[in-house]
Amino acid sequence: MHDFASDNHAGAHPEVLAAVAAANDGHAGSYGADGWTRRAEELFRRHFGADARAFCVFNGTAANVLAIDALTRPHEAVICPATAHLNLDECGAPERFAGVKLLTVETEHGKLRLDDIARWDERRGDQHHVQPRVVSISQASELGTVYSLDEMRALAAAAHERGMLLHLDGARLANAAAALGASLADVTTGAGVDALSFGGTKNGCLGAEAVVFPRGELAAGFEFVRKQGMQLASKMRFVAVQLEALLEDDLWLRSARQANAMAVRLAALAGDIEGVEVTHLVEANAVFASLPRPAIDRLLAELPGEPPFYVWDEAADEVRWMCSWDTTPEDVDALAAAVSQAVSVP
Amino acid sequence: MHDFASDNHAGAHPEVLAAVAAANDGHAGSYGADGWTRRAEELFRRHFGADARAFCVFNGTAANVLAIDALTRPHEAVICPATAHLNLDECGAPERFAGVKLLTVETEHGKLRLDDIARWDERRGDQHHVQPRVVSISQASELGTVYSLDEMRALAAAAHERGMLLHLDGARLANAAAALGASLADVTTGAGVDALSFGGTKNGCLGAEAVVFPRGELAAGFEFVRKQGMQLASKMRFVAVQLEALLEDDLWLRSARQANAMAVRLAALAGDIEGVEVTHLVEANAVFASLPRPAIDRLLAELPGEPPFYVWDEAADEVRWMCSWDTTPEDVDALAAAVSQAVSVP
Amino acid sequence: MHDFASDNHAGAHPEVLAAVAAANDGHAGSYGADGWTRRAEELFRRHFGADARAFCVFNGTAANVLAIDALTRPHEAVICPATAHLNLDECGAPERFAGVKLLTVETEHGKLRLDDIARWDERRGDQHHVQPRVVSISQASELGTVYSLDEMRALAAAAHERGMLLHLDGARLANAAAALGASLADVTTGAGVDALSFGGTKNGCLGAEAVVFPRGELAAGFEFVRKQGMQLASKMRFVAVQLEALLEDDLWLRSARQANAMAVRLAALAGDIEGVEVTHLVEANAVFASLPRPAIDRLLAELPGEPPFYVWDEAADEVRWMCSWDTTPEDVDALAAAVSQAVSVP
Amino acid sequence: MHDFASDNHAGAHPEVLAAVAAANDGHAGSYGADGWTRRAEELFRRHFGADARAFCVFNGTAANVLAIDALTRPHEAVICPATAHLNLDECGAPERFAGVKLLTVETEHGKLRLDDIARWDERRGDQHHVQPRVVSISQASELGTVYSLDEMRALAAAAHERGMLLHLDGARLANAAAALGASLADVTTGAGVDALSFGGTKNGCLGAEAVVFPRGELAAGFEFVRKQGMQLASKMRFVAVQLEALLEDDLWLRSARQANAMAVRLAALAGDIEGVEVTHLVEANAVFASLPRPAIDRLLAELPGEPPFYVWDEAADEVRWMCSWDTTPEDVDALAAAVSQAVSVP
Repeated sequence: MHDFASDNHAGAHPEVLAAVAAANDGHAGSYGADGWTRRAEELFRRHFGADARAFCVFNGTAANVLAIDALTRPHEAVICPATAHLNLDECGAPERFAGVKLLTVETEHGKLRLDDIARWDERRGDQHHVQPRVVSISQASELGTVYSLDEMRALAAAAHERGMLLHLDGARLANAAAALGASLADVTTGAGVDALSFGGTKNGCLGAEAVVFPRGELAAGFEFVRKQGMQLASKMRFVAVQLEALLEDDLWLRSARQANAMAVRLAALAGDIEGVEVTHLVEANAVFASLPRPAIDRLLAELPGEPPFYVWDEAADEVRWMCSWDTTPEDVDALAAAVSQAVSVP
Repeated sequence: MHDFASDNHAGAHPEVLAAVAAANDGHAGSYGADGWTRRAEELFRRHFGADARAFCVFNGTAANVLAIDALTRPHEAVICPATAHLNLDECGAPERFAGVKLLTVETEHGKLRLDDIARWDERRGDQHHVQPRVVSISQASELGTVYSLDEMRALAAAAHERGMLLHLDGARLANAAAALGASLADVTTGAGVDALSFGGTKNGCLGAEAVVFPRGELAAGFEFVRKQGMQLASKMRFVAVQLEALLEDDLWLRSARQANAMAVRLAALAGDIEGVEVTHLVEANAVFASLPRPAIDRLLAELPGEPPFYVWDEAADEVRWMCSWDTTPEDVDALAAAVSQAVSVP
Repeated sequence: MHDFASDNHAGAHPEVLAAVAAANDGHAGSYGADGWTRRAEELFRRHFGADARAFCVFNGTAANVLAIDALTRPHEAVICPATAHLNLDECGAPERFAGVKLLTVETEHGKLRLDDIARWDERRGDQHHVQPRVVSISQASELGTVYSLDEMRALAAAAHERGMLLHLDGARLANAAAALGASLADVTTGAGVDALSFGGTKNGCLGAEAVVFPRGELAAGFEFVRKQGMQLASKMRFVAVQLEALLEDDLWLRSARQANAMAVRLAALAGDIEGVEVTHLVEANAVFASLPRPAIDRLLAELPGEPPFYVWDEAADEVRWMCSWDTTPEDVDALAAAVSQAVSVP
Repeated sequence: MHDFASDNHAGAHPEVLAAVAAANDGHAGSYGADGWTRRAEELFRRHFGADARAFCVFNGTAANVLAIDALTRPHEAVICPATAHLNLDECGAPERFAGVKLLTVETEHGKLRLDDIARWDERRGDQHHVQPRVVSISQASELGTVYSLDEMRALAAAAHERGMLLHLDGARLANAAAALGASLADVTTGAGVDALSFGGTKNGCLGAEAVVFPRGELAAGFEFVRKQGMQLASKMRFVAVQLEALLEDDLWLRSARQANAMAVRLAALAGDIEGVEVTHLVEANAVFASLPRPAIDRLLAELPGEPPFYVWDEAADEVRWMCSWDTTPEDVDALAAAVSQAVSVP
């Protein structure tokens, strides 16, 4: 049984690993001057639009922070949900590398609303205060919810009419697109996104992400930002080929659909268990639920995994169960059965 | 025939790739909480000393810059050769991330001498000037030369008696150790090094480096520096297992010896060709040579590779031929024959 | 009639200006190597304790940011009220220069409570999250309230038992000390403060502040931080002599008492006006009050000053009236009369 | 007798001090919202051109570093003489605040030549290397020499044709303009300068500098850079009025002419002394000279000042004698006599 702690606990998809092995074919140009990187770049244009420019990086922290850096000057600021990975889980990397301040907003389900942007208008032009320049949303959100295309377009419009830009943390972009039945272009370029992280790692890579600028002109000089940001791979073919594998045959979509479907299955099963409450809409590959604390403790002790899953909110007895590309119906059913059992113990 | 452009043009050693594939075994803890990372850390202690602490990162830029950051405050400075990778090829990453200034020194063969440290003593304590805190050397150097253990110990002593620290850029540490017939501990911990980059990528990895602190106390808080520096891998097992593969069975040494031996072979053959002059001692895996410009142009046009090799100093008609773990005697002989032919054309 | 917009609207106290003029006496050593700076440093030791080390800087932004920089590494963080000047009014200078993240807390009256520190304990040691290192309080607070010595000691103890440090933004330290009837040492060194800004500008200087480290050892290397932070004055005597003037004859105290007394007088008069509510305790030199919006608009239009005072919270019809060293009873009475008149207009 | 250590050893010109005292006139808007600042800005337009925008800051370090920051992204670089104040005497502030690297060039007399720019063309577009963006010159130079207007225009053209910008460190701009008989506009705006520091402090202020952008569009957002750079004065009138005093009645020119004339007088007298060699052209207010070491030591011991002057190059027995706005013919004659005496002692 696979654990439900994180989609980072899953390994690499066999097709990705096979592609990496196939790329280990003699000598090749370094730092991106190789065929795998060129093919990956071409695939990004196919999926995100002909003007899109994509840059491979190693991990999601860097994909987000370097994009933010490219879009801002240090006295500018980023509006984002307080739950954003950028705010909670990057150890201050945005502040340090880009110099910017994050203007955080409490949200109910991890999604920014229109008036979360408007509230920062008051000190625009005031030299004593940072100037909002970027709206950053996570799609899917950290709470497993998904912005509709209409919601995204409205946020993009609100940003653009203020001279701001829309950034999308797409660590789980594949899951969001799969959930919406939308293409990658629909959920980014078509929705008004100005820069985004495309997450490969959680989608089945060993470790590969990309910064994508749907309109290429915002990418000017980004190769230097990436290098100075310590994210230029010398043997880049081994990063690029992973993304090529995801994008070439819709592996990205198959894997995301599988993870999402397993979350839906789990939510349905868990929601039927007395004493368990699903706390956020299950729109991507995460299930958040509250259950009695003794049941949580029992499950943590008995299930496999380091840990088997995370307690998300200690005060609220809320847990997160995360499904991956490799989560199976058997995994889900086993978890649901264990939950049911744990909850029912007197 | 393999090109001689860079040891980054080589692929991954089959044993490394096999280890990566073997690590793709179901779910595992993320961010280093996995068995491969624990084993790699144990191997670093075995090779560098029981007090050593090692941290996996993605690439050499980060390994160097994060180590420098850990050793300095921003008003401090790093003394290094003007030819240091840190100075010439990191796009200003040390200045930007660590905030420090590099105090560069012209050298004859890429190696720092004792009085290159002493010359910066004059403004110690002067609040208008950055304060030298780190001496950084590359071992092997960017010019393919190697510091003897005595030279290293003397530099370490000169640094330490000034309250400074010795940093070693070990992108090619394996080649240096192999050249000296020394253990990894001899050439680092035993020689007084305070922090170092251990380069796996050029030594046969897909992409894996480590920052090593021989005396663990200098590593305090480094896990936060790595994370904030955007170098914490989520599926870290796939980085760590590469280093495990290098260090477990002395693969690092076999690969380095092969590369070094090929450089020696090439230097011997090339040095015998009239019109070709080997310009630096060949002590590791690089051969620098000057030859007539028409011969260079002919070789660049005719040999395989993108490019086949680099012109190092355009003004001096000097080229760099770099050997890798996969360079064969046949590769060397073919290059030597091509050079001989190119030079002899009237 | 003097306006009530800010204690920065007041000019320099005549004794300060006279001291500056007297310091314009031929040549003197630069960058602090002069008698005025030496005397100011001696006065800081007299007022803050024999181990204190003080460094003159130009303004309050720098005093706060450079102190924070000296106390932290960039992956560390500062706990402060959301209303802190550091958070709201420094245009992101702490984030940019020190690289740190601010962990902000909503407060009722601008004062941090003990459990505002405890709430950040949860992710201590978690490499994904910044590590709290400094608690920063403003004394007097931005809302004109003052921490008691007991409150300060409790915060200091809570910080210290976690290995954290207590920073005090003392832009209005003189007002706080005057309000408490405490010496400058009592309210800083004696209360467990580890670093502080001593604000001279609002207390009657043309422009002069100091960073003070009550225990000198935390000041190690601060002369370099100040220089690299662009705050080392070449003709430093003209900054230092201003602080000398404040500290030599208790001018700091006389000025603070005057400003505080005027605030008390204003609060009493305004509080008696029907329709006016004083919204925070008046413990230093600021009066916050809510009054009907039409009255606010009338006062802004009729009273002298650019502006005559600030609307603090547009949504709550709350204004701030700030008293200065030069505010007179006549100023206060004139304002109170105008308010009374404005409120009573039908 | 005034010492010759630095133009920072001189006090403030009486007219500047009088202007400061006159500005201490009741309440005024803070952070630049006052009449003195508006008048200073108007005077900068009168002297530098109608499109010029000027921003007051506290000191020369900040004037240079903030201008560089405004002109660059962190992966860009600044070409400057190795002797530049920016490189030698700012404790790494440009590297830390702007993140940029300085590309330094050895010069004979402190002045950059055309081919010092061309030499950095080689790695333009190479992602591994910082990209030259700014040429920075000091006018007058740190060695007391002055660029002709033709030399400046040629450097500006060389910068502009590469898409680079010309920055001028004008800590002693007044001296250079006086030496050239040129207006401030001639030597900046008219010569192609894109951003500059206008130095008031050495020219007779207590402490006041300005960043000037001759073409206003480069100033976009600079008010935020200044604030985030910790250089926004709260009682700005007291900074601005100093610059107003310099620029209103050509006080800047009178003071600069006096200092320059004294340097010429000193060079003539010293150059006639056997054993003394003037080592750089004396074009502004500094005299560099070599003389026998025993004479140097004798002068340092006997003359007034802390120190009386600086030894510039210990190895070459070279000293710097710096003249100020307050240097008198009697000061010069006394120094010359002392030198003559010191040199003649057997």
